[in-house]
Parts: sequence; C-alpha cells; structure tokens
Amino acid sequence: MDFSAPFLTRYWSHLLSALIGFVIVKFLAQSLFGKERKRRLSDDPARQLDLDRDEDQDEVQGVPGGPLSSEDTTEHIPYRLKRYTEKEMFRRAEEFYRMMDERRTVRFFSDDAVPLGVVHTLIKTAGTSPSGAHTQPWTYVIVQDVNLKHQIRELVEAEEEINYRKRMSATWVKDLEKLRTTWEKPYLDIAPYLIMVFKQTYGVGPNGERLNHYYSEISISISVGILLAAIQNAGLVTVTSTPLNAGPALRTLLGRPINEKLLLLLPIGYPAHNATVPDLQRKDLKDIMAVM
Amino acid sequence: MDFSAPFLTRYWSHLLSALIGFVIVKFLAQSLFGKERKRRLSDDPARQLDLDRDEDQDEVQGVPGGPLSSEDTTEHIPYRLKRYTEKEMFRRAEEFYRMMDERRTVRFFSDDAVPLGVVHTLIKTAGTSPSGAHTQPWTYVIVQDVNLKHQIRELVEAEEEINYRKRMSATWVKDLEKLRTTWEKPYLDIAPYLIMVFKQTYGVGPNGERLNHYYSEISISISVGILLAAIQNAGLVTVTSTPLNAGPALRTLLGRPINEKLLLLLPIGYPAHNATVPDLQRKDLKDIMAVM
Repeated sequence: MDFSAPFLTRYWSHLLSALIGFVIVKFLAQSLFGKERKRRLSDDPARQLDLDRDEDQDEVQGVPGGPLSSEDTTEHIPYRLKRYTEKEMFRRAEEFYRMMDERRTVRFFSDDAVPLGVVHTLIKTAGTSPSGAHTQPWTYVIVQDVNLKHQIRELVEAEEEINYRKRMSATWVKDLEKLRTTWEKPYLDIAPYLIMVFKQTYGVGPNGERLNHYYSEISISISVGILLAAIQNAGLVTVTSTPLNAGPALRTLLGRPINEKLLLLLPIGYPAHNATVPDLQRKDLKDIMAVM
Repeated sequence: MDFSAPFLTRYWSHLLSALIGFVIVKFLAQSLFGKERKRRLSDDPARQLDLDRDEDQDEVQGVPGGPLSSEDTTEHIPYRLKRYTEKEMFRRAEEFYRMMDERRTVRFFSDDAVPLGVVHTLIKTAGTSPSGAHTQPWTYVIVQDVNLKHQIRELVEAEEEINYRKRMSATWVKDLEKLRTTWEKPYLDIAPYLIMVFKQTYGVGPNGERLNHYYSEISISISVGILLAAIQNAGLVTVTSTPLNAGPALRTLLGRPINEKLLLLLPIGYPAHNATVPDLQRKDLKDIMAVM
C-alpha cells in the first residue's frame, strides 16, 4: 500500500469516514460498557456479591491493599494483651486444640432447654470477628418459636426431597437408605434454637443510602468460625448446614430485608443421649501445613 | 442532512468506509471481550472461585440440601460431650466472650520469637473446622525464613504502592497521611511468622483426577475463624489481611500448586510493647441479633 502524500490526498475523505466510524463505535462501546460497569458496582443487589470476588478485588478496595479492616482512618489507642510464658502458651494452645478437636457436626439433638442468655453471649462472641472495612455484615436470627421452627423444617425438607428425588443418582440414594438417611430433618424441630446466619450483601447508611460491603462472605464465615468455637466451649453442638435452595423462602418467612441473604442454618442444643457421628478422620498436620 | 438517493450515491464510498471502521472495531471488541469472558469461566484456576458463588450454589450440590459435611455416607459411632451445669455454661460462655472481645487487629508486632510448636498446635486447631463434604480445602503455609518474609513484603508493598498512587483518591491519601499510614508494611518483616492461607479451589484424587470442592471459601473462612480464636487464646495477635492483588505472585514465590489460591495473609506474633489500635466500637447485640 502506498502511504505517500498522493495516496493520502486522494483517499483522505475515506480515511476520515473510517476514523469517524471508529470514534462513534468506540464512544457507544464505552458508554455501554461504562454503564454495565456502574450497574455492577451499585444497582443490582445480586451483583453486589461479585464485589467480594476476585475480578473486582483487583481494583480499588474499600481498604487499600486489602486488610480486612479500614481501621487506619480512626484515632489510635494503646493495645495491651496478657503475655503468657512459653510453657503456659503451649498448655493453653494444646488445651484449646483438644477442646476443638472434640467438636463434631451432630445431627441428633436433645430437646432439653438451653438458656437464651447463653445464646446471647454466643452471638456477642461471634460479633467480635474482624470484617472487611469493619462493616460487620452479619445478622444472626435466633428462632425459638416452635411453630416457626416447624415451618422452617417444612421449607428445608421440601427442597431436600427434590434433591433426593431428582438431583441425586439412584446409587447414591440407595447407599443412603442403608444408613436410614433421608431428606427428613427432625432436628429442626427438636433443637431448642435455630441460628439463621444472614449475610448483609450491602449496608444501609443513616440516610438510607446503600453502602458497599467488601469481603462479606469471608468476614461472616470467619465470624461463624468464632461462633462454632464458642458453641463448643459451652458444651453445645450444631450442624453447619447451608440450606441455600431454601434461602429465599426462609428469608421471606422470617421477614428479613432484601439486603440479607441466608448463608448458613445452625441448629444448636445439647447432643441427644444416643447421638452418633460418622467415623471420619481429619487430615494429618503434614497434609494441611507447610513450613518455609 | 439529505438521506435521499442522490446523497447516498454521492457519498456511498464514505459510508462504506464508516461501515468498515465499525465492523473492524466491533470485531476487535468482541474478540477481546469474548476471550476475557472465556478465560473467566474456565481457563484460569484463580477464576474457578466463581463456582462457589451463589448462582451456582442454587444448583445441584455436592451434598444434597447442603449440609456442610457429607458425613452421612460413613459408619456411625457414639458421640459424647461433657455437659455443663447452666451456671457453669454461663460462666464459660462469658469468659470466652471476654477473651474474644479483647481480640483486635494489630499491625504493630514485636520481633520476639514464638515457638514453632505453638504454631503447629494453632494450625491443628484450625484443621478441626467443618468443611463442605469434609473436603478440608485448606493449606496453611507458615513462613519463618527472614529472606522469604522480606520478599513477601516487597511483593505486597509493590501492589500497595499502586493502590496508593493510582487507585485511591487524593483526598483519601491525604487523610491517611495524617495518620502516617502508607503502603509500607514493616510488620511483614517483623512478625516471626506469616501464615499464608491457601484455599484449594479443587482437590486432586488418588489417580490425579480433579475433585470438586464445594463451599470451599465458606469452609476455609470458618477454619480461619477458629484459628483466630486459637491465636487469641495463646496471647498472640494477627492482622486478617487479604493481599489478593499480590496473590498469584505470592503463590509462585512459595511454589504452591495451581489449585491453591491465596485467600488471606496472617502475620502472627506478640504485639509490640507500644502497639496501638484504632479506637473502633463493635455493633451492639441488638443490631446483630433478632430473636423470634
């Protein structure tokens, strides 16, 4: 091709038209993609979840560089923590490990009452968790009402029955028959409390404005980890269940706002006298840890 | 403008050029955005995380109905747990709450040594966490080597500097100046250990086959919550940081396999003698709990 002056002189108007076409399309593309981008960042509550995800985390953070807390912007006060001798530290670490190692997911509950005040303290403990930009994006709904517990059971079992009838293979269902495991969840009636763990997908400011929540799923799950430790420490048991198919129906039943999404359902109580657990082993330390 | 036939006849070559410009740009845009989309869905292991997300969780689960554990398919053994009197339960719950309420995210570390054996016990404790289908999708990499810690610091700070220089507003940076907060993270050199928390996005079976991991982000975050409780119980402190921009580089530096993705970076050690924390408050119980 001849890019000399005569060529440009002859075809300048065509080149100009091509350039104009390019500019128009680029402008359209930018305004469209720009809008798409804006909507993802603010308008669609379902998309807010994406804000926790990797593709967005590579961009501007609620917190620069990503510490889970934006505590940097507040005045500082001295921090003191009791320091144990090495011997005492070893003893405490070992004792806490042994306590947590006794924790198991238990599906056989006693219907014995548990004081509500204890549950309050357990939830306060969960509330000490760190969270992205200190947003504390959790709501713990404690269900003790017998009728409400039963309605929850019915909603969860309805989904569970669909799983068994349609979503699982015949072999799988047959295997489970031997163990008398079905879609029935009697513990949802029996346990004295059901802790419904709602993740706030976004916050609401003092003037009703929507506030972004970053890392909310990581944050609330860390909070639940602390809750599990508190439950075990109190001599109680739970099942860490994720009844997500039933989530929207349960949110409606409990009248929770649309910025809350059911993440986990934890029945809590004493284990039944004849409770059993599957004979499972945990991975060895060498399979979960590397030292460099 | 005149769009009649004479106009079209006269300027057809210009219109054609504009059309060609449009088509070229559209083609380029599609191939670029199309590739980006495909990579997000399948090729990049880091992107596999989306499989844990809500839109997928509403479909067939690894575990029907979603209990975090598939323990149902194993033989059962009796489960016993020490039962406390109500008075004792209240005392234990309150004591554990007070301990956890003293926990704060601390960025000022002492360089005093911490016995590696204690860290082993802390990681064992994290390993008692429940997980989706008992997959235990976590690898805790403990970095104690001085040079390796420094390389990690350099990688994290390089990303952090980009955040400060390009991704944050001038006002924000100015606000942070007053607090002497910069992209520098000296604690990554000072803390005796850096715990690098890697999430296994999928497992590898005995014959090298890929095993799906469900709920892995929830599971590992719960495990980290238990770890935070164990760290606090031992009289140590940490920063729950999410250095995701630096994740791939850190994974390469530490030689971790591609099914592992860095979720969190937790430096641990004693707090510095003159450590400070931001004067933040936690939400009241009434703002995080509802009873029905």
